[in-house]
Amino acid sequence: MTDHLKLFFEPRSVAVVGASGTPHKPGNDVLQNILANEYEGDIYPVNPKGGEILGMDVYASINDLPDNVDLAIIILPARANPQAIRECAAKGIKAIVLAAGGFAEVDEGGTALEQELIRTIRETGVRVIGPNTSGHTSTPARFTSSFFPQGAIPRGNISFLAQTGNFATHTMRYIKTGENFGVARVVGLGNKVDLDESDILAYLGDDPETHAICVYLESIKRPGLFLDTARRVTKKKPVILLKGGTTQEGAQAAVAHTAAMASDDRVLDGALKQAGVVRVFDYSHLFLAAKAMAAMPLPRGNRVSFMAPSGAMLVVLTDLCQQRFGLEVPQVEERTRQRLQEISPDFLRMRNPVDIWGSATIHGVEFGYREGMEAVLKDDNIDAVVPILMLTEKTGVPPLDFIVELARKYPEKPIYATFSGDRKYMDEGKAFLEPRGVPTFPLIEEPFEVLSILYKCRRALEREA
Amino acid sequence: MTDHLKLFFEPRSVAVVGASGTPHKPGNDVLQNILANEYEGDIYPVNPKGGEILGMDVYASINDLPDNVDLAIIILPARANPQAIRECAAKGIKAIVLAAGGFAEVDEGGTALEQELIRTIRETGVRVIGPNTSGHTSTPARFTSSFFPQGAIPRGNISFLAQTGNFATHTMRYIKTGENFGVARVVGLGNKVDLDESDILAYLGDDPETHAICVYLESIKRPGLFLDTARRVTKKKPVILLKGGTTQEGAQAAVAHTAAMASDDRVLDGALKQAGVVRVFDYSHLFLAAKAMAAMPLPRGNRVSFMAPSGAMLVVLTDLCQQRFGLEVPQVEERTRQRLQEISPDFLRMRNPVDIWGSATIHGVEFGYREGMEAVLKDDNIDAVVPILMLTEKTGVPPLDFIVELARKYPEKPIYATFSGDRKYMDEGKAFLEPRGVPTFPLIEEPFEVLSILYKCRRALEREA
Repeated sequence: MTDHLKLFFEPRSVAVVGASGTPHKPGNDVLQNILANEYEGDIYPVNPKGGEILGMDVYASINDLPDNVDLAIIILPARANPQAIRECAAKGIKAIVLAAGGFAEVDEGGTALEQELIRTIRETGVRVIGPNTSGHTSTPARFTSSFFPQGAIPRGNISFLAQTGNFATHTMRYIKTGENFGVARVVGLGNKVDLDESDILAYLGDDPETHAICVYLESIKRPGLFLDTARRVTKKKPVILLKGGTTQEGAQAAVAHTAAMASDDRVLDGALKQAGVVRVFDYSHLFLAAKAMAAMPLPRGNRVSFMAPSGAMLVVLTDLCQQRFGLEVPQVEERTRQRLQEISPDFLRMRNPVDIWGSATIHGVEFGYREGMEAVLKDDNIDAVVPILMLTEKTGVPPLDFIVELARKYPEKPIYATFSGDRKYMDEGKAFLEPRGVPTFPLIEEPFEVLSILYKCRRALEREA
Repeated sequence: MTDHLKLFFEPRSVAVVGASGTPHKPGNDVLQNILANEYEGDIYPVNPKGGEILGMDVYASINDLPDNVDLAIIILPARANPQAIRECAAKGIKAIVLAAGGFAEVDEGGTALEQELIRTIRETGVRVIGPNTSGHTSTPARFTSSFFPQGAIPRGNISFLAQTGNFATHTMRYIKTGENFGVARVVGLGNKVDLDESDILAYLGDDPETHAICVYLESIKRPGLFLDTARRVTKKKPVILLKGGTTQEGAQAAVAHTAAMASDDRVLDGALKQAGVVRVFDYSHLFLAAKAMAAMPLPRGNRVSFMAPSGAMLVVLTDLCQQRFGLEVPQVEERTRQRLQEISPDFLRMRNPVDIWGSATIHGVEFGYREGMEAVLKDDNIDAVVPILMLTEKTGVPPLDFIVELARKYPEKPIYATFSGDRKYMDEGKAFLEPRGVPTFPLIEEPFEVLSILYKCRRALEREA
C-alpha cells in the first residue's frame, strides 16, 4: 500500500529541475545538500543553460533525461510547475517534490494555479510532495530534497512529519547543532495537493527505520483515514502530534501560514486520544521528546525516582509530578531504602525522592549518584530515573561513564539526566552523556515533562481497543 | 521596623566563629567567599587554635573579640550553638547567622536542641538567621555569609528569599555562570527559629537596592503577618512565590527537607492572590522571571507581538498565548501593518504575529528584524515584543546592536529574545544581548511563559485594594 512512496524515500536516481550554478540559490543548495549527505544514486541536474554544475553534467530539458529516473525535485516558479509535471510524467518519472510557493497560501491567483496543479497530477498519475515544501529527507538513503543549507543530516530512528518547512530548515539545524540525536525520515508536507499526512504516516508506520513519529499539523485533510491509519500505527510505535491552530487566533495565523482551515478541537482531541495519538502543545516538546525516544525505551509505567542535591528541588518536582505531569513518586522497597540510608549520613532520612547531597558531598558525586541510581533502578516500584547531577566548581565533572553503564545494565528503565550547578559543566555533562545514549535536559522540569508524554505513548502502545 | 536587619545586610564588621585554615572546610570557604567579594568591613576569624588564616589574625575566643562587632557567622556543631550565642550576646553582637544543621529537620534530639536555641535567642535578644542555612548574601555591601564556594557574586537588583540553601549554593552558581544578571540580597532562611519570611520580606520591601523579590517557601510561619507584609510590599515591587509541598507527596518531601508542615493550599492560594503575590510552580521560573525583571520593565499589558521565521512557530505560540499564558496577540494598527508589508515580499500577507522570514531572507536578518520590531514597538496596541531570531549557518550572527538600541528607545516595552537555528549562534546571541540588557531564552515558549508571570506582577502593582 505504501510502496509507491519508496520512490521518495529510497530513490535510486534523482533529477533536479531548476538546478543552479549560483551559490545560495535553492537550485544550488539542494545539490550541495544531496552531495553533502553522500547520496549514492544518480543525480541529474536540469537547466536550459546546460553545462556543468558542481562537477555534474547538466541536462538542458526534462525531455533529455535518461529513462527510469525515480524522483524529480522541481524548483521552478509556481506558474511553470504544471508543465514540468507533464514533462516528468512523459519521461516516466512517478515521484515529484514541488518546492515552489505561490499557490493557495498566497492569493486567488495562486489558488487557481493550485487547482491546475491538482488536475495535472490527477491526469498524469504522478505522486507529489508539496508544493510549498522545503523538502524531505531520508537518511537511510543518504538523501534529501531540502533546498535549505543543511550539510550532512545525522541518521537516527526518529521521523518527523510536518505541515511546515521548519523541521527541514531551522529546527533541523538546531537538532543537528544543539542535540545529539539523528533522524530517519523528515517530510515537509507543504500544501499537500497530493500526498498528505495520512499517506506519509502509513509509510512511516511500516518503515523499519522509523521507531517513533513526531507530527506537526495545521489541518487534517482526510480525518477518517488519518485516524484509521493512526490507530494502526500507534500500536507499533509512538506517534506524538502537535496540532497548530487550535485557538481562534492561532487558526488565523495558520491561514496565513498554510491556508489551513480550523476544525473543532474538542472533537478532534477525543478522536486522536482514541486513535492512540499523544498530543503535545509546545513546539519544543517535539524535539525534546524525540531526543528521549531516540536514546531510551518508553517508561513501562509512571513511577519515577529522582535524586537531587537540593531538598527544595525534590519538593517542587514531587509537587509537579503529582499536579501537572501525572507521574507517581512512590515509596521504594525496604531494601532500597536501606541501601540509600547506607550510602548517606545518618542524619538524612532517606526516601524517594532521593536527597543525594549528603552522599555526594561525603563520598563524591560519582559514588553517591551511582549507588543511589542503582538502588532505585533495581527497585520494582520504579519505572524511570532522573538524576539531577550536582556539577559545581567544587565537583567539576566527575567520570560519568557509570550512568552510561547503568543505562546498559537496566535497559528497560529510561534514565534522563539534568543538572544543578555551573553552566559549563552542564554543557560538558551533556556533551559526554548524549552521544553515549543518555539524554539530558537543561531545566530540571523538562525530564518529567518528557516522561509524562512518553508514558502516554506507552499506554497507547499497550491499549486494548 | 526593619532597622535591626541592617546589621545583616550592611555589617561594618563580621566575626566568623569556627573559622578554619583547612581549604574546602565551610569555616574556610566562608572566609574565601567574603574575601572574593571584596568586603570592606573588618573580618575577625575565631578559632581556639589562634594563629593566622588567609593572612588574617585569628581570635582564640568570642570573648577576645573587639567590641562593636556587627555580625557573627557561627559555623560550629549544632550542640555548641547555644553557648556561642550567649558569648556573642555578652560581647554585644546583635546579629547572628547559624550555619549548622542537625536541629528539628533531623530527629527528636535535634528538636530538643532547637528548643534550647530558641530559648537562648529569646533570653539574649539577639536576632538570628538559621540554623541550617547556607547563608545570606548582600552584594551592595560586598558581603556574604555563604560557606559554599561562590567567588564574587554579581551585583544586581533582584533579591531571593528562600527556605532552602539552594539559592545560596548551586542555583547561585548557575545564575553566576549561566545567566547574565546579578542579585541584591539572597537569604537562605534555614529553620527560621527567629527571623522568618515575614521579617525578611518587610526588609526587602523597604530596600532601595531590591527591585523585585523571588521567594521559595515550604511553610509560612506567621501567615497573617506574611500576608499583611506582602500586601504592602507588592504595591511597590513584584513578589513572585514558589510554594513547595502543595501536594500530599510534595509535603512529605518537605518534611524531610525542612520539617515544614503542610497548609491548605486552596485557602493559601486565594489569600496570596489578594495580597498581590504572584505564584509560580516551576523551580526554573524563579530565575527565568528574575532574569527578565533584572533587565526589562514589567509589561504594561498583556498584548504581545512576536516575529519568527517559521509560520508554524507563529501558529503554535499564538495558540499557547491564548490557551495557556493569558496573553493577547492583537491585530496591529493599519500603519503598522502597512510598514510590515513594505519590508516584506508581496506574497506574504503581513499581520501580527509577524512572519519575518521573507523580509529577513531578502533584506537580511538585521534589516528585517529591526524594521519589523520597530513597527510593532511603536504600535499602541502592543505591550511587549518577542523576536525569535533566525540564526543559522546561512545568516551567522548579524550585528544585534539594533535590539539593544530599540530597547533603549522604547523603554516601557519589554523585549525578550529567543532563537531559531544553530545552537552556537544562539549562545553567541545570548552572550551579546544579555550583558547589554536584553534577556534571552533558549526555548521559544519561555519568553511567553515569563511575560505571563510578569504581566500578573504588573496587575498586582496597579491593583486598587
